[in-house]
This record gives sequence, C-alpha cells and structure tokens, in this order.
Amino acid sequence: MTIGPRGDVAHLGHAELLTPVPEESLAFFTGLLGMTVVAETRDAWYLRGHGDYERYSLKLAASSRSGLGHMALRASSPVALERRVAWLKSAGADGSWAEPEAGKGPAFEYRDPDGHPCRIYYETEKYVAPAGSRPAMKSNHQRYLGRGANVRRLEHVNLMAADVRGCREFWETGFGLRTYEIIRRADGGEDGAWLSSTIQGHEVIYVRDYTGGRGRLHHLAFWVDSREEVLRTADIMSDAFVPIEAGPSRHIPIQGFYLYTREPGGNRIEVCSGGYLWFDPDENPVVWTAEEYAAKPGWGARLPETFRTYGTPPLDA
Amino acid sequence: MTIGPRGDVAHLGHAELLTPVPEESLAFFTGLLGMTVVAETRDAWYLRGHGDYERYSLKLAASSRSGLGHMALRASSPVALERRVAWLKSAGADGSWAEPEAGKGPAFEYRDPDGHPCRIYYETEKYVAPAGSRPAMKSNHQRYLGRGANVRRLEHVNLMAADVRGCREFWETGFGLRTYEIIRRADGGEDGAWLSSTIQGHEVIYVRDYTGGRGRLHHLAFWVDSREEVLRTADIMSDAFVPIEAGPSRHIPIQGFYLYTREPGGNRIEVCSGGYLWFDPDENPVVWTAEEYAAKPGWGARLPETFRTYGTPPLDA
Amino acid sequence: MTIGPRGDVAHLGHAELLTPVPEESLAFFTGLLGMTVVAETRDAWYLRGHGDYERYSLKLAASSRSGLGHMALRASSPVALERRVAWLKSAGADGSWAEPEAGKGPAFEYRDPDGHPCRIYYETEKYVAPAGSRPAMKSNHQRYLGRGANVRRLEHVNLMAADVRGCREFWETGFGLRTYEIIRRADGGEDGAWLSSTIQGHEVIYVRDYTGGRGRLHHLAFWVDSREEVLRTADIMSDAFVPIEAGPSRHIPIQGFYLYTREPGGNRIEVCSGGYLWFDPDENPVVWTAEEYAAKPGWGARLPETFRTYGTPPLDA
Amino acid sequence: MTIGPRGDVAHLGHAELLTPVPEESLAFFTGLLGMTVVAETRDAWYLRGHGDYERYSLKLAASSRSGLGHMALRASSPVALERRVAWLKSAGADGSWAEPEAGKGPAFEYRDPDGHPCRIYYETEKYVAPAGSRPAMKSNHQRYLGRGANVRRLEHVNLMAADVRGCREFWETGFGLRTYEIIRRADGGEDGAWLSSTIQGHEVIYVRDYTGGRGRLHHLAFWVDSREEVLRTADIMSDAFVPIEAGPSRHIPIQGFYLYTREPGGNRIEVCSGGYLWFDPDENPVVWTAEEYAAKPGWGARLPETFRTYGTPPLDA
Repeated sequence: MTIGPRGDVAHLGHAELLTPVPEESLAFFTGLLGMTVVAETRDAWYLRGHGDYERYSLKLAASSRSGLGHMALRASSPVALERRVAWLKSAGADGSWAEPEAGKGPAFEYRDPDGHPCRIYYETEKYVAPAGSRPAMKSNHQRYLGRGANVRRLEHVNLMAADVRGCREFWETGFGLRTYEIIRRADGGEDGAWLSSTIQGHEVIYVRDYTGGRGRLHHLAFWVDSREEVLRTADIMSDAFVPIEAGPSRHIPIQGFYLYTREPGGNRIEVCSGGYLWFDPDENPVVWTAEEYAAKPGWGARLPETFRTYGTPPLDA
Repeated sequence: MTIGPRGDVAHLGHAELLTPVPEESLAFFTGLLGMTVVAETRDAWYLRGHGDYERYSLKLAASSRSGLGHMALRASSPVALERRVAWLKSAGADGSWAEPEAGKGPAFEYRDPDGHPCRIYYETEKYVAPAGSRPAMKSNHQRYLGRGANVRRLEHVNLMAADVRGCREFWETGFGLRTYEIIRRADGGEDGAWLSSTIQGHEVIYVRDYTGGRGRLHHLAFWVDSREEVLRTADIMSDAFVPIEAGPSRHIPIQGFYLYTREPGGNRIEVCSGGYLWFDPDENPVVWTAEEYAAKPGWGARLPETFRTYGTPPLDA
Repeated sequence: MTIGPRGDVAHLGHAELLTPVPEESLAFFTGLLGMTVVAETRDAWYLRGHGDYERYSLKLAASSRSGLGHMALRASSPVALERRVAWLKSAGADGSWAEPEAGKGPAFEYRDPDGHPCRIYYETEKYVAPAGSRPAMKSNHQRYLGRGANVRRLEHVNLMAADVRGCREFWETGFGLRTYEIIRRADGGEDGAWLSSTIQGHEVIYVRDYTGGRGRLHHLAFWVDSREEVLRTADIMSDAFVPIEAGPSRHIPIQGFYLYTREPGGNRIEVCSGGYLWFDPDENPVVWTAEEYAAKPGWGARLPETFRTYGTPPLDA
Repeated sequence: MTIGPRGDVAHLGHAELLTPVPEESLAFFTGLLGMTVVAETRDAWYLRGHGDYERYSLKLAASSRSGLGHMALRASSPVALERRVAWLKSAGADGSWAEPEAGKGPAFEYRDPDGHPCRIYYETEKYVAPAGSRPAMKSNHQRYLGRGANVRRLEHVNLMAADVRGCREFWETGFGLRTYEIIRRADGGEDGAWLSSTIQGHEVIYVRDYTGGRGRLHHLAFWVDSREEVLRTADIMSDAFVPIEAGPSRHIPIQGFYLYTREPGGNRIEVCSGGYLWFDPDENPVVWTAEEYAAKPGWGARLPETFRTYGTPPLDA
C-alpha cells in the first residue's frame, strides 16, 4: 500500500458559482443561507460561512449561464503545492497560474478529466473580523449571527461526469484524495465516487451524468451544525418559496443528512449535516454494486429522477 | 375534588415589558430574539413570535423604569371572561376595564396579591400575515424566517412575590390555573410555584422575592422548538455580548431547558424549550421541600444567587 | 360558540393492540420501543412508556388477528365520566361497563360510528416505580433507561373510517374533543380529521379507509422527545430489519415529525415528535381542500400509497 | 514551516482503563455507555463503540488501582510505525514491543514525558459483526442498538501532567500531532494543551496536575452523535445515580459539549459531542493566556475545582 501524495491537499478551499441572476443569487446566499460578503468586484462577490478560517469559501459571479466557475483546493504547504503542480505538468495537464483573488494567493488552474475547472493554491489570508464585530471567543473566526440557515462553511462540491472512475483515479493518483465510497456497475464503470482529503467523508464527489453532458455541476453543499438545523432550513426554504428538490432525508453514501434546493440562478444547493468521520488510514472504500445501492439499504428517501439529469449549466444552455 | 373554574382561562396572552432604553430593547427583541413588530404607538411596540396566532405576545413600552407593565391572560370564551370578572369583583378586586390595544379587545385589569398588574380579555384579532408574505402552510401564522433565536411565542411569566402561596391560591381559586410544582418550606410558606392553564407545565410562575420587594418581575420566557435551539441562542447572545446570567442548563421544576440573559432595559429574559407536558387532570402537584430542592436532584447547574434578589424594577429604582 | 362538554375528557389513556404473534410483538415494544411491562395475564401484557403517569398506555393482547382491541380515554373527573356515559346512553349507544384492568377502574365501552371499540374511565392507579428503581427526580414517574427508541408515552391513535366526518362529529359533540385540522373533499366528505382533548394537536385521528373496510386501525403513535430521537429510531429500526414504511419526514397536519414501521403482528406503529401546540380556544380548525393537501405545501415526503389502504386487521383477515 | 512527521499517526486507537471493581465498571460501560464486549481474558474485557472500525477502543482491566493502563495510537502505515519507533529510539525512549492483543498487532510501548504508558501499532483486525447481526448498511461496522448513551467511539484521552508543555512538544516533535489550543501562563508554562492527528480538535489532551502527581489520567471521553444525545446521557446517568461531576455544558477549548461522570472504578468519564473541525494546515494554535481562560469568554459553566486535582489513580492510592 502506498499513500502516495496523501497530505498534500489540506481541504476544499472554495467554489466559484456562476449565476445569470446575480442579485437574486446573492440574496439567497446572504439572506437564506446566512453567508457574509467580504469582498466584491464589478461582477462578483466573495462570501464566507461563519466557520471559515479563510476569508471566503464561495465566489458568486455574474455570468450568462449557471454552473461552476471553478473549484479550488488548498495545499497543505508551499512545497505540497509545488509537488502537485509538478505532477500536473508531468501528467500533461494544460494548466496555468491564476491571479490572486480577494486574499487567496496564486492558484494553478487545470481541468479534471471531465473538464471541470479546478485550482490549487496555498497562500491565503486568515479571516479577521472587523474591529467592533469580533466574536466572543478567539477560537471562532466570526460572530454567530443566526441568520437563516447560518451555514458554517462550504462542505463539498459534487460534480457530474461522464467517466466517474477516471475522475476518481485522477484525484487519488494526482492529489492523494481518499475514496470513501463508490457505486460500481457490473461493467466496472462507476455511478458515483466520494473522495476527501480529510477524515470527513465528503469533499469532492463525482456522480454520473446520465445525459452525456460534460463539465457540469451537480451541487455545492454547505454545512450546518446539526440535523436539527437541516430541518430548520427546510422551514426557512419552504416559507421563502424556494423549490425543495429533495429531503430532508439521509443519503446512503457517507450517511449525510441533506436538504436540496435550487438557488435563483438554477444551481442546486445542498444544506447538510451529520455523516460519518472515517479514521481508518487504509485503502478500503465501501463499494456498492449498482444493485445494492438501488435496493436502498438502511433508511432515507429515494432521490428524485432529476438527480440523474439535472445539473448546471442545463444541457440546452 | 373540584376543578372549579378550570377551563375559563385559555392561555397566557401577552406581557407588557417596560424599558428605559426602548430603542436598544427593541433591537434585542427583533434582532436577537427574532420577533416582528406588528404595530406601534408613540411610545410602544407590539411584537410577535412566529408561532403566535394572536397579533402579538409582547408589548414593549418606553418607561422611566424597567419591569412588568402588565401580563394578560386570554379567557376561553366571552362567558368565561364574564365569570372571571364576576369572581374578581366578588373577591373585592379593585379592577377596571382597559381599552382595546392593537387588536386585542377590552381587558379587565386587576392586581394579583403581590401587586402585579394583570389583565384578562377574550376578544382578539387572529394574525394574518400581509399579502406577499404568507407562509407556505396555512397551519402556520407567519413565515419562518430563522432570524436570531427565532422564538415561537411568549411561554411564561415569572413573577417575584413576598407571599408565593397567596399568589398561587389566588390563581387556583379565581382562575382555575393548575399548579404543577411547588417548593415548600418547613413553615408552610412557599419559595416557588409553577402554574398553568394548559397541559404545558409553565405559564404563570411565582418565586419568592428574598429582598422583600413587591410587584417585581423575575423574567419573561420565550419558547424555541428544541434544546438545540437554546444552545444556538447561547452562541447568538454571547457573540452579541449580551450578558448570560445562567445556562444553558435544565431546571428542576418542569425540567425546562433554559438560557437567561438580560435585555438592554435590564429585564431578565429566558429562552427555553423542553420540559414536560402534564396530562393527569387530578390535583397532585409535585411538592419539593426546600431541602429536597436545595439538594439538586437529577442534573442541571445551580442557579446564581442573583436569581433570589434581582428583579425588575431594581429595588433602588 | 359553545364549548359543550369540553374539559370532560382529560387525555388518551391507552390502547389495546391485538397481535397474532404476541411474543414477537412484545420483543418489539420492549426491546425496540423501550417500553416496560408492568403487569401481565395469561394472554396479555400491560406496558408503559417512561413518561406515563398511569400504570400503562399499551395493552398488548394475543389474538387470532391484528388490529385494535380498544382505545380508552380518561375522563377528567368522576362527574365528567358520568356525564359522558349519560350522553352516550342518550345518544343510543350500545355500551356496557368493562371490568377494571391492571390498575385502571371501571370503563364504559362503546363503539364509534365506524365500529371501533372505545372506552372511557376515570379511576386509575398512578404509577409508582418499585423500591430500588425510583427515578432521581420526583417529577418523573420512572427511570430514564435509554433503551431503544425509549418512547415517553402513547401519543395518538389513528383510526380508519368510512365516514370520517361522522366520526369527527361524534367526538366533538359527545366528548368535547377539539378538531385541529380537516382534509375536506369538494363533496363535503372528509379524508382526514385530527382531534384532541388538549392543546397538543394529536390525540384521536381519523383517516378515510379507501378500501371500504370498517373498524380498522391505521396506527398507534408513540412519542419521543425530539426530532433527533425520531432519526435515531430510524437507525434502530433499520438495523433491527424492521420494515420502515415511511419517514423520517414531516406530516402536513399538525406538522409532526414521523417514522412509520410495522410491529411483528402487522400493526403500523409510528414514532413521532414535534408538531405544534394549539392555544387558541376558538373553534377554527385548519381546513385543507383535498387539492390543497395533495399539492403538498411546505416540506415533507409524500406518503406511500399503502397509507390509504393498509390497516389492521388486513381486509382478508 | 515543516510538517515534520505529520501523517504518520492515523488516530487514537484505544485506551486501557484500570479498575479495582471490574464487574461494576463493566456494567457501566455496557449498560450505561452502551458498549459491546468483543473479547475477554481472565482479567480484562475488550469493548467497542458502535462506530469503531477496529475491534475495540477500550480495554477494561482488573487492577488493584484505577487509572490508565496505557493509551494506544494507530500508525497510518507499517512504514510510519517504523519511523515513529525509530524516532523514539533516537530520542532515547526506553520502550519495547508488546504482544498483540485481541486483534491488534505488535505495539511499541513507551512513556510520555510525564510517565503515562503509551503504545503505537499499525496492524489491526477490522471488526466484522457476527453473522446474524450484520448492520443494514455496509458502511456501518455494527448494528445501532440504542442502548444507554450508545457511544460511537473513544474520542480522546485527557492526561494530567506536571509539565504540559514538555508533553505537548513530545507529541508534536515525535509524532506530528497538531496542537489546536493551549492555555499558557505568564511564566511560559502551560495549563493545558489540545492535540490531534486529524482535523478533529480532540484526541490527546494534557492538563496540569495541580497536585504534583505523575502519570495520572484525567479522563477518557466517548463520542455521541449530537449535543441532544449528551443531554439524554445526563438523564440516563442521573437516573442510574452515577455521580455527575460537571455538565452538560460546553468547554472553551475545542468548544466540545460535555458531561462528566465517574465510572464505578473511580475513573472520570466524559460523554461528548460537538466541537469544531480545524481545516487550516498551518501551525497556528489558539493560545489563551491563563487570564483570558479564567475570564470564561463565550458561554458554558465553570468547571469544578476537582478538575484541577482529581485524577486516577488518586494521590493516596
């Protein structure tokens, strides 16, 4: 067993989300999810959950279409960043350095095998709350305001892909991400893969795009501190007349407790909590056959058919 | 056993709270407790929790001092109101009819044996959310906004009294309130009594005023839907630098889970959840001797010494 | 407005559940729901939840078929019991007095309009835990053992009926139960009615039996103290390989958070928490048209088709 | 910045707890904490929480005294184990290989600077539930039984030490543990240090032994899945008349929600949940001055004086 480059990636850093209705989307993320704007440009806002130690975990950008602008991972050190970029180059990746943005330093941008834009960076400003609004405890980064769903942080990015297995192996081989669960078909292809750089089961997820689309976003997920708060979020969303696509219920993989909505720009947004921490350092993912998965072991609602086909941008976009 | 006038009182309707710093108090109740203003006059606001079926459960009034303006009970019918007023008159109460206020009809105002101003009324407007902000379900009265502690309703009023027993008997005899728990001293006097017109253990509470003061307010308590939300409220309050006097922890009487703060006007405010429902219709309150109570059976923190002496208005006011 | 006999019924007292596999059913209620046997006869057990102040809230009886043996309400006083029996007789009910059982006194047994056997009683022994196993607090009736779902009490009985409206009016007129919610068809018939003798929205529920069956049980529901505990119960049930028919999710009526299983005898059993308390004493139930109800306002899963047809005993029994 | 040997330790594996009353202690861990015995010898039992992927996380051993037998960390690979043993030898540690026990392979045993026996191992059997009692989901290791507090796993070990700083540096330097929080005195000495090999803030903790004792155990902590379950545990413990030393409340360091009891052998046992995950890979622990810590920022009860002095074995043992 080799753990390869394990440890070089520290965690998911942020996602850039594209929206054709930026003002409405901003109202969703601030008013309903409870995030805070820390910086803005002419056509983008940088937002944070109350638990983010970095300045932001979401960039919301005006665009002609919905979907993922990019997702970004933070390397665990400058050397780790160098190593990952070197691997990318050795693997023939067609990447380049992106400019620092809103407190995060230079990032190397590349694409995963399905074409999703990804970045890796190390330098980052630690968030310091403005004088006059420091939290009571120095172990917190920001005051707990209790606004709306009051999400703590971006928890994972779920990407649709034509070749889930290829994407999974890309992150394992090149970045040392751990795979915790896989849904594997009889033909060896995979319908889903759950990867992470930490003991937390969720971080980067791939699910099969049944439409044959490429480079699409399935959803971004934001963390709240208890399943009870996921239930509260359902009250908030339904009274705001935001469409609820699924949940509250529990997933099979990672066993996370979920609620799925769509933000005004059309992107699917999950609010989640629970799920397990995985301490075993050995490589032994849980592998579900497609039949086992379809049989719905344990409890939890069936996901709607749209989970197989709807992603952003929509296919006709 | 006679159940006397049981059934004539439907529930606690509202409390009027006096504050010398009205703007700051208003910010506390709207921003931190998450209540909504439904009406205002030159020197008062009427506020509601998201679960109130009446228009309001709190009147916040500017005053030179803190404390209770009055507390008000809703009678279960016009006839029940008549009966209670007749009893008051027969008992020699020095009461009179107060004008309708902000959607609640005529109220008979009187004083409990310790001098707290109390009212009883029947007529009330049911709250109807403004067009454009109706909740998703017609069984809700208002949208669930998830702002701050997001309290559902006024849950109980806790009054300090020189003669707890006398006050308890006044409500039992005259209004048919049930007594659920009593702390009784060896001399037959009482240190606390928990009464209610419903199966919910809390509604009108008396605790002994160890200072010898009269007519003072111990606290108002507002309900949240889970103990987890009481814990969240502690985060909200501590990051707003509102003083936390006690909790989160659990009381012996009624077993409610509590958090005590002081609103800017100096009035003690509880946010609570949990506690039992009492279904037994027979008269059999739990009676704690002072020694049993002091021995702290079960679990939960000891209350601070200020609980015996601090009330509003302060003694020197 | 007349409140009629309101107040004469204190609360739901217990249900007798029939099971063709008594030993297996007993293991379900003790091992998985966490109830305790307090008495037994040759072919029945009497069980309690940890919060029952009476000796028991469930009688489990061996029988050739599943279904409801009877449900029983406790009157609020001896006089109230007399009044209700007098009403039954005046209404031509064909009832008779049943013998005391396991600490509950004489009960008048009658049938609701759909033929379900019902009882009303007043006398009851208060439960006293055996010496050596008293709880820490005298306000509790029994130790908190944390076994399985650890249900607190029987919360409601849900009965299938051909004429929901007729059943609802029977309880309103004859027993003063309050109706909190109704699902009403365009033809004036009703698909469901939620009644209670207390501020708690659930107690006696009728739903339409789409099969045309008579006198069948839809389910018994047992209370746990938080929605989080309903979620825990789903873990317990799925790992015990007990079939989960629905949930965890939230109902429209009363907004209770539910989990539905079948006990080994085939009877549907709900574990629930949450839902609202209704303080308004006026008669103003929430009335859903069948269309409004079918549109699923708010959030929560759709109930499976079996909810319309499956009851106990099964039709072919 | 160097991350040194970070990554070589995977996680806390188990603790051996000594008890002079083994049968009573066993009843506590199985009946009240809900753990399961997987193996036993003449004078010891091996127990697991329902979430342990290894066979056990607690060894309970009969002894003439209470306290810690040893604590054990699992290395992330055979090579990592070799590296850590090499470091120990290079650092002059007086260690030796202990025999495999109950499914865990050879362990190198050494002492921390305060004299606590510690082990590090790599080989371990993954737990497989007996046929006939497999859980519903293959991502679980064991059925969820819901017995008592139903702890998921051993979460952390808290050790008392004369020189907290020395112990902290031992683990950082030799084993790559991260330090998340420190309480530092003006003289540069430390009153507490919170270390972990994962993003979870708790794993190995040192607190100052104010008595001058050596090698003593402050407590073992077991995880439950929500703060609500910590509250439930308080009900279970108080009704079992197990002494509750502190809580439920929240700690300053790591912000864990806690309940402290003593198991019958005298060892302090915590049941905990909540607390933060720390994603930042950089070395920047939160450092509290003794004054800041004593000022109790945020919310949460003060710990009792016994937290400074009571450990196992007691000083007079």
